[in-house]
Amino acid sequence: MGANAVAVVGLGNMGTPIARNLLASGYAVTVYNRSRDKAEPLAAEGGAIADSPAAAVTSGGVVISLLSNDAVLEQAALGAGGFADALGAGGLHISMSTVSPETSRKLAEEHAKRGSLFVAAPVFGRPDAAAIRKLWICLSGAPEAKARALPILNELGQRVQDFGDDPGGANIVKLSGNFMILAAIEAMAETMALCEKNGIERQTVYDFFTSANFACPAYQSYGRIIAQRAYEPAGFVLELGMKDIRLARETAAASKVPMPVADFLFLRLQDAVAQGRSKLDWSAIELATAEAAGIPVPAPLSKAS
Amino acid sequence: MGANAVAVVGLGNMGTPIARNLLASGYAVTVYNRSRDKAEPLAAEGGAIADSPAAAVTSGGVVISLLSNDAVLEQAALGAGGFADALGAGGLHISMSTVSPETSRKLAEEHAKRGSLFVAAPVFGRPDAAAIRKLWICLSGAPEAKARALPILNELGQRVQDFGDDPGGANIVKLSGNFMILAAIEAMAETMALCEKNGIERQTVYDFFTSANFACPAYQSYGRIIAQRAYEPAGFVLELGMKDIRLARETAAASKVPMPVADFLFLRLQDAVAQGRSKLDWSAIELATAEAAGIPVPAPLSKAS
Amino acid sequence: MGANAVAVVGLGNMGTPIARNLLASGYAVTVYNRSRDKAEPLAAEGGAIADSPAAAVTSGGVVISLLSNDAVLEQAALGAGGFADALGAGGLHISMSTVSPETSRKLAEEHAKRGSLFVAAPVFGRPDAAAIRKLWICLSGAPEAKARALPILNELGQRVQDFGDDPGGANIVKLSGNFMILAAIEAMAETMALCEKNGIERQTVYDFFTSANFACPAYQSYGRIIAQRAYEPAGFVLELGMKDIRLARETAAASKVPMPVADFLFLRLQDAVAQGRSKLDWSAIELATAEAAGIPVPAPLSKAS
Amino acid sequence: MGANAVAVVGLGNMGTPIARNLLASGYAVTVYNRSRDKAEPLAAEGGAIADSPAAAVTSGGVVISLLSNDAVLEQAALGAGGFADALGAGGLHISMSTVSPETSRKLAEEHAKRGSLFVAAPVFGRPDAAAIRKLWICLSGAPEAKARALPILNELGQRVQDFGDDPGGANIVKLSGNFMILAAIEAMAETMALCEKNGIERQTVYDFFTSANFACPAYQSYGRIIAQRAYEPAGFVLELGMKDIRLARETAAASKVPMPVADFLFLRLQDAVAQGRSKLDWSAIELATAEAAGIPVPAPLSKAS
Repeated sequence: MGANAVAVVGLGNMGTPIARNLLASGYAVTVYNRSRDKAEPLAAEGGAIADSPAAAVTSGGVVISLLSNDAVLEQAALGAGGFADALGAGGLHISMSTVSPETSRKLAEEHAKRGSLFVAAPVFGRPDAAAIRKLWICLSGAPEAKARALPILNELGQRVQDFGDDPGGANIVKLSGNFMILAAIEAMAETMALCEKNGIERQTVYDFFTSANFACPAYQSYGRIIAQRAYEPAGFVLELGMKDIRLARETAAASKVPMPVADFLFLRLQDAVAQGRSKLDWSAIELATAEAAGIPVPAPLSKAS
Repeated sequence: MGANAVAVVGLGNMGTPIARNLLASGYAVTVYNRSRDKAEPLAAEGGAIADSPAAAVTSGGVVISLLSNDAVLEQAALGAGGFADALGAGGLHISMSTVSPETSRKLAEEHAKRGSLFVAAPVFGRPDAAAIRKLWICLSGAPEAKARALPILNELGQRVQDFGDDPGGANIVKLSGNFMILAAIEAMAETMALCEKNGIERQTVYDFFTSANFACPAYQSYGRIIAQRAYEPAGFVLELGMKDIRLARETAAASKVPMPVADFLFLRLQDAVAQGRSKLDWSAIELATAEAAGIPVPAPLSKAS
Repeated sequence: MGANAVAVVGLGNMGTPIARNLLASGYAVTVYNRSRDKAEPLAAEGGAIADSPAAAVTSGGVVISLLSNDAVLEQAALGAGGFADALGAGGLHISMSTVSPETSRKLAEEHAKRGSLFVAAPVFGRPDAAAIRKLWICLSGAPEAKARALPILNELGQRVQDFGDDPGGANIVKLSGNFMILAAIEAMAETMALCEKNGIERQTVYDFFTSANFACPAYQSYGRIIAQRAYEPAGFVLELGMKDIRLARETAAASKVPMPVADFLFLRLQDAVAQGRSKLDWSAIELATAEAAGIPVPAPLSKAS
Repeated sequence: MGANAVAVVGLGNMGTPIARNLLASGYAVTVYNRSRDKAEPLAAEGGAIADSPAAAVTSGGVVISLLSNDAVLEQAALGAGGFADALGAGGLHISMSTVSPETSRKLAEEHAKRGSLFVAAPVFGRPDAAAIRKLWICLSGAPEAKARALPILNELGQRVQDFGDDPGGANIVKLSGNFMILAAIEAMAETMALCEKNGIERQTVYDFFTSANFACPAYQSYGRIIAQRAYEPAGFVLELGMKDIRLARETAAASKVPMPVADFLFLRLQDAVAQGRSKLDWSAIELATAEAAGIPVPAPLSKAS
């Protein structure tokens, strides 16, 4: 493979548009996914399909990972058939998953033992933003690693922000951002319940604030979902969000930083899971507020169902 | 006075630019302020100065009130020298203060007894937004009252949103919005503490999020204050903010709507007042998080001072 | 009537045993209750029945009130047919209801205008403790009022504690105590959920702690109810408890004292009411913890019913 | 050594009275402590002193461990010079430290590999209770292990409660109990602040409740400390308490049980540590409530010092 070869490991709803964009930009892309059927469409667009993470990478090459959690990521890199050994001396691992800072620090060490570089590069933005290269990317790691990752990341997002040399730094920012999103969701939930209970339409409240001092993507996208109770299909599945808030909480405890709102939100998510809402969009924590306020909730979403 | 006469009662940092804009738009403006010196500059621009709220209004005319709290507003309308009796039959009171929905409902009733109309029209936006007619205005009240208020309000803001016929409706939305702002402040405070404790600059965190999914006025204006700890001079004084969150809490309790984050934020404000921070900007609740996280706080802002 | 005449207004589950004990101690007792049928049994034991609060008292005599809330108490004392005017000069009002300190202060003033004395004397202990004169009584008011009330109160409880001259003082202690009870309930609820989820029997946990460092009535009585989920019939109805915690919250806010656990408990109660649990014992807030933990709750108590 | 030989590893303020009681009961006791000076007094009373945990135990004998945290316990059992290997086939380890259930489960497994038995037997009660054999002991582990431990434990406490066969069960109960104690402390702190702010003496409030429905050791011992602000010398050091509440929180998260009050209390402790209070008695979390309420705190305890 040539200098512009890139492996993409993990073809979920973020990995697929990212691989597609790299293909369109002229990279030679080899993809790996646990279930091969998600890889087939990319082969039709010029990508190569590998049968293991190790087989996807070339020695000294670049691998981008987009996996669902810390354990899956560790397995793909360091487990049997993992890519870390194959990547070898001179390689670069761009880890775009939302994982703990500890996992990034551990991977950076493991890659260093093998002569490879590592950056954490988690993203904000949803699949449709990924498709049009509008992601916001958080970057951290050793300077030479970041320098080499930057041209590739610039193909994928509208902004790449450097958060320093600690490999876990970008993960902390990503976890913080997800916490801020869920805090915004809770604030909107309490607001809409108060307004609705007083005869003011949720949609009107949404329209007003997201045109005024809250005119930004976090409020616009989740406010709409809450106002319309459009929790299915989920943009971001509640149980995945719970994983992220758990990581934020644990990072806060390890850092001796009090995050009382994060603690509260974790319980909201935990309660939602107990109510059978783990597959809904995570903004469905709103339903707890509505129910406690005595606001009728559509039957398919209510606890009783 | 002619049909375009308007009285403005209360010349704080919102009342003054609003009176000025009305003068510039050709209204015949009479102003009243408890301390007359704040009225003088407007006289130089063509306004008339009254010696009491009652003297500021004309029978059947329009009065705009912009006062600091429920008690002051009630006094100006219904107390000795108040304008309600003078406004009389056919008058219109546009109440732009941030007060409780109960006060608006009570005033609407009192005005109705005298044959006058009432609307609540609290605003979002700071004095500089008021100066350039960029306020967002929440409106509620009887249809004929709103219809008559609308042309005037359109001179003052970029958007006027109708929140229904309950005179208190707009107040509920305003209190909700202030709650959402303070929730955003707390979320940023926890985030910045977590990042700073892990070696990531507050300013970088601010720059990133307010360019990305939190690119909206609430986060941009307060995020900057928090990142720089620019709590003095205050844009919005903490003790005034505490009044608003107290009203939100009371409205929530009266409406049987749980607002756990609002409850928590009220305690944050109460604690800040106990620490001698009542005159700082209300985003100074951030200092409690920093102190509990063991992050150094500049001496003039610390508890020990 | 003689010097040992006492009127008892309010024959709920506390007023009745108190009136009975006074009869047994030789007092001449006249009773009043809104529904007369609750008074009949006391007539059989030697009591007189009055047709109004005013008719129950004698000028310069003693009246004990035991009513369900502030409004009912105010009505019985100051409303039409109320006893305050009839009590007149030299009278004494012993108010044993759980009400706000403000109501006690107001009543003390109103009685003073009429030449009467007032004490607040709310109690801890349940109806069975009242029956055997084992109540704990909180007392506050003017010294001469307390001195006169003391011999009567000593007939009713095992301990009378003086909490000072502010008529509202005893109410603050009573509200605080109810807050402490509910905090204990929540702590037991979280503990039992944690243990049960780990395979440890609730009843065993209860037996152990209430024989060890929590061997006291608050934990023993409510712990048993929680361990057995014996929420019906209610010892203390949830909606009444919610009133008390609301009063505690409001007193805290007025006193500028942060009570975060009280705020949280208020939401727990509010949520329980929304789930249709207002008539259960107030320790039924435990069900929220169980449900959120995924612990099966008997069908008649679950939300779905 | 004979059948009644027991090793005691860890001579802190609990280990010492326990070793002394075993000596007095006729056991042949060998002690080990990291700093040998704490062992000397026991030698004078007939105990033998060992130079390592391994040297303290006999093959097939009994060892009691009383150590400060999970890591120290693991080291003493499984580390270099640890007792697990020396204990060997037929041995019994009675672990009385407050540690996580995971540590107990792991130790039970490790001992099983070596043919030894394990019980967790954490205690409630302070050093003076240990001295007079009045501890309350929580017990869990395999039936044969518990049967063998019981006669020894009966020498040490007034009650031994069996919490099942899961080796971690007793630890969960112990962590729960510490949580309940700290919840009681917070409830008293909020109560005393409310009362004091309204002119009612803290000591009077304490006397009343701990003679009435809260007449039990947890409230009596900690209530006195809070009422008198006797946080030094510490009965239970705040930073140790923080370790326990952290373990409770983690166990709750792992068990998917919401413990919102535990979460809140953890932040209280974390904040107290940031204020330099880690060496005070853990009931010193009370100071945060007092300070936020604007109640004067003695200078040596205040944040400013």
